[in-house]
Amino acid sequence: MDIEKVVNLAKRRGFIFPSSEIYGGLSGFYDYGPLGTILKRKITKSWYEFFVKPEEKIFEIETSQIMHKKVWEASGHLKDFIDPLTQCKKCHSNYRADDLIQEKTGLLVEGLKPEELTKIIHEKKINCPRCSGELSDVKIFNLMLATDIGPVSGDTAYLRPETAQGIFTNFKNIISSMRATLPFGVVQHGKSYRNEISPRQWIMRLREFNQIEIEMFFNPKKENDVPNFKEFAKTKIKILKQNGNPIDISAENAVKEKIIPNNFMAYFLAKEFLWYQQLGIPIEALRFRHMGKHETPHYSKGNFDLEIKFDFGWKEVVGNAYRTDFDLTTHQKYSGETFAMVDDDEKVVPHVVEPSFGMPRTVYAILLYAYREGTDRGWEWLQIPPKLAPISFGVFPLVNKDKIPEEAKKIYKTLKSNYEVLFDDSGSIGKRYARADETGVPFCITIDYDSLKKKTVTIRDRDSTKQILVKTKDLEKILQKLFSGELKFEKAGKLVK
Amino acid sequence: MDIEKVVNLAKRRGFIFPSSEIYGGLSGFYDYGPLGTILKRKITKSWYEFFVKPEEKIFEIETSQIMHKKVWEASGHLKDFIDPLTQCKKCHSNYRADDLIQEKTGLLVEGLKPEELTKIIHEKKINCPRCSGELSDVKIFNLMLATDIGPVSGDTAYLRPETAQGIFTNFKNIISSMRATLPFGVVQHGKSYRNEISPRQWIMRLREFNQIEIEMFFNPKKENDVPNFKEFAKTKIKILKQNGNPIDISAENAVKEKIIPNNFMAYFLAKEFLWYQQLGIPIEALRFRHMGKHETPHYSKGNFDLEIKFDFGWKEVVGNAYRTDFDLTTHQKYSGETFAMVDDDEKVVPHVVEPSFGMPRTVYAILLYAYREGTDRGWEWLQIPPKLAPISFGVFPLVNKDKIPEEAKKIYKTLKSNYEVLFDDSGSIGKRYARADETGVPFCITIDYDSLKKKTVTIRDRDSTKQILVKTKDLEKILQKLFSGELKFEKAGKLVK
Repeated sequence: MDIEKVVNLAKRRGFIFPSSEIYGGLSGFYDYGPLGTILKRKITKSWYEFFVKPEEKIFEIETSQIMHKKVWEASGHLKDFIDPLTQCKKCHSNYRADDLIQEKTGLLVEGLKPEELTKIIHEKKINCPRCSGELSDVKIFNLMLATDIGPVSGDTAYLRPETAQGIFTNFKNIISSMRATLPFGVVQHGKSYRNEISPRQWIMRLREFNQIEIEMFFNPKKENDVPNFKEFAKTKIKILKQNGNPIDISAENAVKEKIIPNNFMAYFLAKEFLWYQQLGIPIEALRFRHMGKHETPHYSKGNFDLEIKFDFGWKEVVGNAYRTDFDLTTHQKYSGETFAMVDDDEKVVPHVVEPSFGMPRTVYAILLYAYREGTDRGWEWLQIPPKLAPISFGVFPLVNKDKIPEEAKKIYKTLKSNYEVLFDDSGSIGKRYARADETGVPFCITIDYDSLKKKTVTIRDRDSTKQILVKTKDLEKILQKLFSGELKFEKAGKLVK
Repeated sequence: MDIEKVVNLAKRRGFIFPSSEIYGGLSGFYDYGPLGTILKRKITKSWYEFFVKPEEKIFEIETSQIMHKKVWEASGHLKDFIDPLTQCKKCHSNYRADDLIQEKTGLLVEGLKPEELTKIIHEKKINCPRCSGELSDVKIFNLMLATDIGPVSGDTAYLRPETAQGIFTNFKNIISSMRATLPFGVVQHGKSYRNEISPRQWIMRLREFNQIEIEMFFNPKKENDVPNFKEFAKTKIKILKQNGNPIDISAENAVKEKIIPNNFMAYFLAKEFLWYQQLGIPIEALRFRHMGKHETPHYSKGNFDLEIKFDFGWKEVVGNAYRTDFDLTTHQKYSGETFAMVDDDEKVVPHVVEPSFGMPRTVYAILLYAYREGTDRGWEWLQIPPKLAPISFGVFPLVNKDKIPEEAKKIYKTLKSNYEVLFDDSGSIGKRYARADETGVPFCITIDYDSLKKKTVTIRDRDSTKQILVKTKDLEKILQKLFSGELKFEKAGKLVK
């Protein structure tokens, strides 16, 4: 898996551009190009239809990205959202001290104090990887981006490092306006900001990125009463247990065997495992890692990272945390509000299970696993699942004369009312197939002289490069079935040659 | 028009919440609640279907909200995106000096220098409106929000004050990846940030807000060759001319009479005038104001604000600017890139017409003009056009027994696959109608004993409060037609009573 090829293709074909590139770029920032924007929209739509649409009580909100300082005091981010920083005294490169030590020595040092990390750097004689210069003492660095609001400097607010706090601070307004009763969920999709010390690996570790977070609120006494649990109870998932052993187990059994804390958590893990497969990630490249105690906050009753196997190794894409009532109770304390709800005639501060999806990492995984190159055709292609492919169909007139373009335009316009369609009339058909393949267009339709005489068109399949002949009047219905997977390509028409 | 009633309803029913409210709020920041989020999504969808979907060459991108300092040097924002600030020496309240002078004296002082404004404040003896304290000398205040990127302080980047610059800086990547030829458009929808000196009027002047911007690029020699112009050429719009006189004129005639600079501008003005009417804004509350020279930048060849008549007066909701090649040429100069394209065998730096839509002001206008109260029913209601109403249908079982809830749930589930539907079984039917009215639900369906015996249900119309009886098996088709406006309510079934 050569990620550089994916990065280049993604730029060349309009998926992902480096941000502020004409001014040298800005480390940790990337832009979505025209195709990347459609891809992201289709991922979001697929997510919404799988995680929100079938539910009766999941509400969506969209809150400000800049929030009051007190929000971050209460949430603990001002104090605890930190990384250990060391700087090269010679070339001034910055490093996350724990990452650097782990890379150089293999030691697991997450959670150690700055003094302890400094000591290890001295003892192990770790120098700057870039210039071999001496490294500074380790200090604490807060990852939130700050900005001064209003004309008086010092009135500092923060760009949110997660969307979740906008849900907790609006908790009362949500339950009262929606007359919500337990259990219910609130989701938010939007940008979050983290001032990473050393952003890297393309769109893997960014300073500005899209998240989708669900906060599922429930009565802790009924932590297993999940409305639609049955539907996913028998779904098999893979978990890397805290002791390092992998296990394949159904969602319901993982709860029975006390690996997963409750059905709410199990419900989301099962759905996530299925959804990422729908995005084209192979099952072998998916697992949940049960996080160790030292990696999770003190209030957590269980954290499970959905990890995907990337070109460089396994990495978190969705964080799942059973945060108990920590967020609501701390905001109660700091704001003086009360967030208790009545359930079964008892007052209860709800507990919460939180799945938190990283959008750029999801895009990274989709492009990585869609990328293909082979000797059978002279170019690369993206085998993106049809429903996610930014452009669904290409329409190509064979020649630019003899009323063939007019016929092609007619077909283009019909398809365009329901799909994203590319009209391409420049260069040889081969070149047009190559371009369409690179952008991941699943099916291309060519209009030729037979289209006028015999009312037929050719459909070409991106994945097999096979072509079939179909009647023009059946085209839309056939494409629809190919698109949904209802019909296999070879059976959809008469194979050409 | 009592805006306070709208503000209260919007909060109570989950449209708009003050941000960080439990910590006293953050001036200039508001959050979208569950219904506000759906409303915003439906507005965006309607916008997309009207302005982007029918076009062949409008691309959408999504760029970073934090951008390189050099972007803002080149764009002129670092130097010119400023307001004049004066502060009360006693109570420390901050004011925009030009606004304050205009309010107190009626003088138009936009564009005057700080020394000149200071002089007027002294001469006219203007004091702090809050405490009558003495005001400070006027100084210049930059409206961009800054933040330090990376671990070294002083590496300043800026939160974008407009989405447009992300389009210009990506210009080369867009044309090369999309093989774009002139004319073509690029749109972006997302957050922008302006550190307003005194945010006010609810969601009218915010520090964080959603924008939709279109940059339409064309060869200035062909400034009237707009692909779909014919369709909107005869659309009548209202323009308040630079001399203050209003005129009703068709888009094409406004170009012929040299009021509007070209067909690209006229095309967008015509479409905007139609679209805002679709959102429920009455035609009398819509006009374009041809901005005076002193209000527009030196490079502008014509600015037209779409203004809506709000409770407090006329205010800009869409800015339309013929920005010529200013942005591309300045970015060429600062970056060393070249943005010339070949058109008709000539190299040309494209000109651009830019419509820039403000989302919160659009939401404000929709809610303001949807708000109703009357003596015929004892509550308020929101007459939001059905396609924009966050919840399309309410489904109410008359009683919670005798299999009526089961029948209602069946109907609820059928409708839910294509619409946003509210199921409500608590309280009297009257109370449920009242709640549905307040959230703007256009049609409510009640299931009663006749639904079981005679297979009929009652549909109630939000706007007239009339009710009709229809066969359950026809329900979905009838609702669809009521929803699209194809069928008038009174003709859709048998009137009850």
